[in-house]
Amino acid sequence: MDVTRMTTDVEILPIGGYNEFGRNMTAVRYGNEAVIFDMGINLDRILIHEDAVFESLAPDTLWDMGAIPDDRVMADFDAEVKAIVLGHGHLDHVGAVRKLARKYDCPVIGTPFTIKLIEHMRDDNRGGENEIPNRLVSMNSGSQRDLSGDLTLEFVHMTHSIVQTTLPVLHTPRGAICYALDFKMDNFPVIGSPPDYDRLREIGMEGVLALITESTNAHEETKTPSETIARDLLKDHLLGLENERAGLLVTTFSSHTQRIKSIIEFAEELDREVCLMGRSLSKYTKVAEEVGLLKIPDYVSTYGYGREINRKLKEIMEEGKENYLCCVTGHQGEQYALLTRMARDETPYKIEADDQVIFSARTIPNPNNEAQRYTLEEKLRMKGARIIKGAHVSGHAAREDHRELLGMLEPEHIFPAHGDIEHQSSMAELAEFHGWDIGETCHILRNGQPKKL
Amino acid sequence: MDVTRMTTDVEILPIGGYNEFGRNMTAVRYGNEAVIFDMGINLDRILIHEDAVFESLAPDTLWDMGAIPDDRVMADFDAEVKAIVLGHGHLDHVGAVRKLARKYDCPVIGTPFTIKLIEHMRDDNRGGENEIPNRLVSMNSGSQRDLSGDLTLEFVHMTHSIVQTTLPVLHTPRGAICYALDFKMDNFPVIGSPPDYDRLREIGMEGVLALITESTNAHEETKTPSETIARDLLKDHLLGLENERAGLLVTTFSSHTQRIKSIIEFAEELDREVCLMGRSLSKYTKVAEEVGLLKIPDYVSTYGYGREINRKLKEIMEEGKENYLCCVTGHQGEQYALLTRMARDETPYKIEADDQVIFSARTIPNPNNEAQRYTLEEKLRMKGARIIKGAHVSGHAAREDHRELLGMLEPEHIFPAHGDIEHQSSMAELAEFHGWDIGETCHILRNGQPKKL
Amino acid sequence: MDVTRMTTDVEILPIGGYNEFGRNMTAVRYGNEAVIFDMGINLDRILIHEDAVFESLAPDTLWDMGAIPDDRVMADFDAEVKAIVLGHGHLDHVGAVRKLARKYDCPVIGTPFTIKLIEHMRDDNRGGENEIPNRLVSMNSGSQRDLSGDLTLEFVHMTHSIVQTTLPVLHTPRGAICYALDFKMDNFPVIGSPPDYDRLREIGMEGVLALITESTNAHEETKTPSETIARDLLKDHLLGLENERAGLLVTTFSSHTQRIKSIIEFAEELDREVCLMGRSLSKYTKVAEEVGLLKIPDYVSTYGYGREINRKLKEIMEEGKENYLCCVTGHQGEQYALLTRMARDETPYKIEADDQVIFSARTIPNPNNEAQRYTLEEKLRMKGARIIKGAHVSGHAAREDHRELLGMLEPEHIFPAHGDIEHQSSMAELAEFHGWDIGETCHILRNGQPKKL
Amino acid sequence: MDVTRMTTDVEILPIGGYNEFGRNMTAVRYGNEAVIFDMGINLDRILIHEDAVFESLAPDTLWDMGAIPDDRVMADFDAEVKAIVLGHGHLDHVGAVRKLARKYDCPVIGTPFTIKLIEHMRDDNRGGENEIPNRLVSMNSGSQRDLSGDLTLEFVHMTHSIVQTTLPVLHTPRGAICYALDFKMDNFPVIGSPPDYDRLREIGMEGVLALITESTNAHEETKTPSETIARDLLKDHLLGLENERAGLLVTTFSSHTQRIKSIIEFAEELDREVCLMGRSLSKYTKVAEEVGLLKIPDYVSTYGYGREINRKLKEIMEEGKENYLCCVTGHQGEQYALLTRMARDETPYKIEADDQVIFSARTIPNPNNEAQRYTLEEKLRMKGARIIKGAHVSGHAAREDHRELLGMLEPEHIFPAHGDIEHQSSMAELAEFHGWDIGETCHILRNGQPKKL
Repeated sequence: MDVTRMTTDVEILPIGGYNEFGRNMTAVRYGNEAVIFDMGINLDRILIHEDAVFESLAPDTLWDMGAIPDDRVMADFDAEVKAIVLGHGHLDHVGAVRKLARKYDCPVIGTPFTIKLIEHMRDDNRGGENEIPNRLVSMNSGSQRDLSGDLTLEFVHMTHSIVQTTLPVLHTPRGAICYALDFKMDNFPVIGSPPDYDRLREIGMEGVLALITESTNAHEETKTPSETIARDLLKDHLLGLENERAGLLVTTFSSHTQRIKSIIEFAEELDREVCLMGRSLSKYTKVAEEVGLLKIPDYVSTYGYGREINRKLKEIMEEGKENYLCCVTGHQGEQYALLTRMARDETPYKIEADDQVIFSARTIPNPNNEAQRYTLEEKLRMKGARIIKGAHVSGHAAREDHRELLGMLEPEHIFPAHGDIEHQSSMAELAEFHGWDIGETCHILRNGQPKKL
Repeated sequence: MDVTRMTTDVEILPIGGYNEFGRNMTAVRYGNEAVIFDMGINLDRILIHEDAVFESLAPDTLWDMGAIPDDRVMADFDAEVKAIVLGHGHLDHVGAVRKLARKYDCPVIGTPFTIKLIEHMRDDNRGGENEIPNRLVSMNSGSQRDLSGDLTLEFVHMTHSIVQTTLPVLHTPRGAICYALDFKMDNFPVIGSPPDYDRLREIGMEGVLALITESTNAHEETKTPSETIARDLLKDHLLGLENERAGLLVTTFSSHTQRIKSIIEFAEELDREVCLMGRSLSKYTKVAEEVGLLKIPDYVSTYGYGREINRKLKEIMEEGKENYLCCVTGHQGEQYALLTRMARDETPYKIEADDQVIFSARTIPNPNNEAQRYTLEEKLRMKGARIIKGAHVSGHAAREDHRELLGMLEPEHIFPAHGDIEHQSSMAELAEFHGWDIGETCHILRNGQPKKL
Repeated sequence: MDVTRMTTDVEILPIGGYNEFGRNMTAVRYGNEAVIFDMGINLDRILIHEDAVFESLAPDTLWDMGAIPDDRVMADFDAEVKAIVLGHGHLDHVGAVRKLARKYDCPVIGTPFTIKLIEHMRDDNRGGENEIPNRLVSMNSGSQRDLSGDLTLEFVHMTHSIVQTTLPVLHTPRGAICYALDFKMDNFPVIGSPPDYDRLREIGMEGVLALITESTNAHEETKTPSETIARDLLKDHLLGLENERAGLLVTTFSSHTQRIKSIIEFAEELDREVCLMGRSLSKYTKVAEEVGLLKIPDYVSTYGYGREINRKLKEIMEEGKENYLCCVTGHQGEQYALLTRMARDETPYKIEADDQVIFSARTIPNPNNEAQRYTLEEKLRMKGARIIKGAHVSGHAAREDHRELLGMLEPEHIFPAHGDIEHQSSMAELAEFHGWDIGETCHILRNGQPKKL
Repeated sequence: MDVTRMTTDVEILPIGGYNEFGRNMTAVRYGNEAVIFDMGINLDRILIHEDAVFESLAPDTLWDMGAIPDDRVMADFDAEVKAIVLGHGHLDHVGAVRKLARKYDCPVIGTPFTIKLIEHMRDDNRGGENEIPNRLVSMNSGSQRDLSGDLTLEFVHMTHSIVQTTLPVLHTPRGAICYALDFKMDNFPVIGSPPDYDRLREIGMEGVLALITESTNAHEETKTPSETIARDLLKDHLLGLENERAGLLVTTFSSHTQRIKSIIEFAEELDREVCLMGRSLSKYTKVAEEVGLLKIPDYVSTYGYGREINRKLKEIMEEGKENYLCCVTGHQGEQYALLTRMARDETPYKIEADDQVIFSARTIPNPNNEAQRYTLEEKLRMKGARIIKGAHVSGHAAREDHRELLGMLEPEHIFPAHGDIEHQSSMAELAEFHGWDIGETCHILRNGQPKKL
């Protein structure tokens, strides 16, 4: 044990997501107690190993691949982990829970939507190598929970591209530690309310020792557009273009419930039956329904599995596809997703000239995604489909969102995360512009490299 | 005279804007009569000649510079010009009227807003080399006017980044010739109504011989966002960011009355006095007021000239700049524009740390503009200003807007214009995708190279 | 039959490679006789169909995929094909010979190296669907051959990234038709001599009716560097970097005999045994040896097939890899190429920290290639390998090469080929700069769209 | 004074060039003694202030502009400066000597070529605000000089895009401090010999405490090509293109004596008289002659000033420009450089169609340079000139050069410099790949932020 350690030390341990995008995980120690934030995966590292099956690989292999956070550094940390805290439900933040959580004898805490997702993960992995034995604890934004005599966890409502995102705050005797991964400042969200600015300002006034913050779009000199902007663009794509006799396919992130809600609502104006199709789309939508965030009207139905999807697609072809809007998986051209299979003519749905395929998603910038998307689009074009892009906005804070958060919290120390060193550097330069000192009060850390405060 | 000429020939003569962006001008001949569409300038060609003063240069020099359309090819055309028709009021479409219009004994026709701009141009150039002796004729979208026994001009309401844009249609015995420079399909404009789709479809049904169309964004696989999107982004930048104690400068295209209107309205919510400042901003705003498109509330005032601007800026500094929103010229970093002079400390306004400078405009993609903008921004950053970008949408049709127009008009022939050969090619490939044949029914022309139909 | 046809008509029929990169094929008709230039494939169109096996697909399917030239347009051409002429041996120029050549009762003519490649193709496809029954005729650059009473074929020596590239010239009573696909003006080639400028100038003086020319790099404002430059860069990478104790892998285009020659020679200075490994590398090298263009010294051996490769790699690991230079296939990260398999640990060769992998090839700009290369490189980096890029030059004419050729030939008509419309446009703009008229004497054609001269 | 200071402390103080490209300056302290490396300017910061005249501005203003290193931090350093050491003669390394050197009572030390440049600077500024009172000391690469009892300075021969570049090494009792700004590993330089690898390896063996190194091209996955490559490209541009009847203008960096030498030599083969024209070209060439690095043959003459240049250009026009090769200033399109004035027709030289303008220089990536170059090139194109680019190689170390240096020196600590934080980060990631720890043994510093070792 580190003999220089003091009972009031605070230490930040970046475990994953500091050298790369993906596999986010950070531990924070106060004295001899610690809290872990996030346990995500890095999908790119799995994609480059063509035959790798995430579920069946052991942590050792996944560490070597860089696919999950290498939490072996926790051994040197030598602290009692009081909680695993999940800020939101994206896989780069929660995907490794099934691989790593069981090593820690503590609850997993998140908002109800996030915890429901983990419950599904747990149910899918009972009795095997990926067992999740931890207690799963739902906690609403706006509430607090004591983790120990010294540590209190608070959830402050935040906005992002997945519902019920929260900004977890760890209150310590030395001040608050805020974990702002991921966020945007959405003043007009489609589901839920804007971020809880009042509470953020209060916490800022009380004193913030450290802000761990995402860096992804810190270099973009703008404020990230609200989800309402995506909704309005989507509306114009769905209601503003000639599509009366056309097949209509829409694809977006399955976890993006706000977007799904908009799609469903515009379909009603089009007087089309909505089919939500594909495994992950079905799962996330179900969870959103369960926690009461989404109401599925009766002109909408969901098809999760191959056989039921095919049966429905056959019916659609018989009834006339101009009566349907199919919301399908495959926005990244994933090899086994529904849209990709449709483009390969592996389903009963026939894509023809002038059918419309609306991508309400950007291509995640990675050569493999770009190749898959290209391949998908080329096949759609060969069929004469009309490919429509652009109805999307980012879920990540841009420079102006960051400036707002810095202004509200006025943290003593800033730790840019969620990105490689180039992106961390952009965030650091922004902090420097506003008075922080890189190396002194703004710290660019590498995975596995702790910083004591 | 061309002995093979027939009285029912239609010929399209591209004069400017087919090899480049800027100096748009096209003539259309039917038999022995012709109509000219647009007479624009190419600002870039003036910018690269550092000391060139457009007003004082003769057409010969401007032709050599590539700054105005080289209409000497009209001599071979040998037709009686019945009208000069202006689709909208941007300088790349009307800027050369003072240089070329007097050569044609015919009226200049445009919508009221456009014609008012030309009246100002005429008044500024009375008695000199740039005299505009032609009759100026206002005509509303939705109306028609006979130009001769054979030719009738119709204005169909269209949307673009300047108010009262129209899509001129020349009705000939051979069918309609539609001139779609520039346009976007805005279903939710901030001023005025969406394009007149019904009339466009009717004209399509009646038979369109040729569509001359812009190409600028034909390669963008999306539908150009509505001006409402820009308005909502601007709203979020003005009302969604902390600016209570900050100076607030907004800059946008002076001719963009819709955007100015939005700025004025949000300023009211901010409870700030609005100062519209700078020569061109003052001019366009005045014209918009005159034709009844913009109502200037009493918390807004306009300052066109140096001395009155400086006097007001001095007052603003004394009264507290947090009470004002200054809408200023200089979004491209133009050397003598107000914002540029402010950044150089040549005015009484002092830009300080945390003052906000909102660019509601993109940089026009040209090395000289980029350098000027860079220089401006660097100076603003050195003062600690918070530069906010992104509240802008294009005024040009993207791929989906083009598809809609092609679907409504179903023209026999397509002539991509408003761009260099690469951009024309993109438009041609789109037309080809939908059944036109490049070289047969879709024609990539060069300046000065006529095409008989 | 076209009643307006005259016995002295010349018609250019672009069959493939005018709308895209790949599947090059052009027919030229004089009166009732025709000559076909090239029969290539478009690899990208095969790559996007994951499971497509080129060898076993029928022409109909390959046409639909856009993978081979759609020569059904030859039916309307109604001319007796006197020869299929191949300018050089790259697959985008010869790959479809096995699919299409048997439809034409005429010889296939090329330089000895090219014809040897076709002989191998013929031998690999005997008796099946891909049979090549045509007579294969070798003809050296610098010689001529009468194809009919009116038509004479001449080969003029040219340089490119494959040996024995020729510029075929079809002499007709109306003048010469020159087919400059592909070429660069290499004044210092590593094998062979510079282009035959004297003969090109002579042909120019005699009168060139049409030049069909590549467009690929016409927009690059430079002269394409000589192969000597690549050789010198490679020399510096091999002899100028510390590699005494490192494994050394070099990968380049298998068909690039000049490059292979350089690699072999520098390996001698390094005192390393050279292993040329991989199927295509073995094939092209063998052909180069057969025609006497490459002499394989005794410290070089070739391994074409899996088992012999593995046996040798095992030996290399045992003997010490610092004694070997392995020149391997896989520069594009092709899934089954040797380097890719090495990176996946599917061979006995163990790539370790500080081993050097030299890519003497650029990534062909296509999303699937980029993804494969990225995936390969990431795996190599995970092993600690030192990846060295840059020892490569293009084989395609840049702007200055084109200017030289235009100056020598002074063709009446120019037909930009080998590229999409954007690249053709660049070539056309260059021609326009030097006095040709787009649409009059410089023609941007589309696949299947003939142009009569 | 810092009470924790020890007599054996080593401290690195980054003064300029760590947050940006330009104004390089670093101080190194051992105990109470210090050495300063470089005193450069940041030209970009001057360019953005249109009317700024460097010579007449005081340090205070230049600090505010970010144009020269802010050495006020030296006050806290509290050490006796024993020498100002200049590694090479580029302005971003020596340009601020006239502004800052007089503050330090110590000699300025450099190689003979560099010191000659400073002598010229001193002579141009005698008696004024920019006086350089310091002793100027020439020292050859390969030699050493004691600066104090503890400190010895050694110059190790290095290669870069200016002659007599050296890699200064400060020997301290704690080990060597190596200052590798700027360098490349050129194994085949056109003037002088390759870097002194033997001595570098020796120093590495003796023990290197710290390496301060450039970062500019650390992200380029290649070895920077030798100057011989540029020479061979230039040769092909000059001797391989048809230019017998054309005017021939070549422009390159005035300080690039190796390149000038090549130009002169190829001109001899062309049998053209060479005119070196322009102020800076004349100055650097003269210095190179003085130190014996360049021999000017009698077919070469130099013209530094306006009147003599104009007289000669008049003569050239009369004698026939096909007999001359003019090597002129203006490769960045600088507003008052000769080529720019020629393009504006401000000299007697008439640029006509097919005249060749060879840019043996890349555009320095900065919006103002890009705009100036664009403006220049457009004017040249309007005259029909043939613009030829590409005969250039970088002077900066790419990834493989860096790997070699790291391998030779094996420094304990690495300090990436010469670039902004993104470029420093690339260098740091490379160091990390090879075993250094970012934050522990590889330090990303900001201007003014010292690091004690």
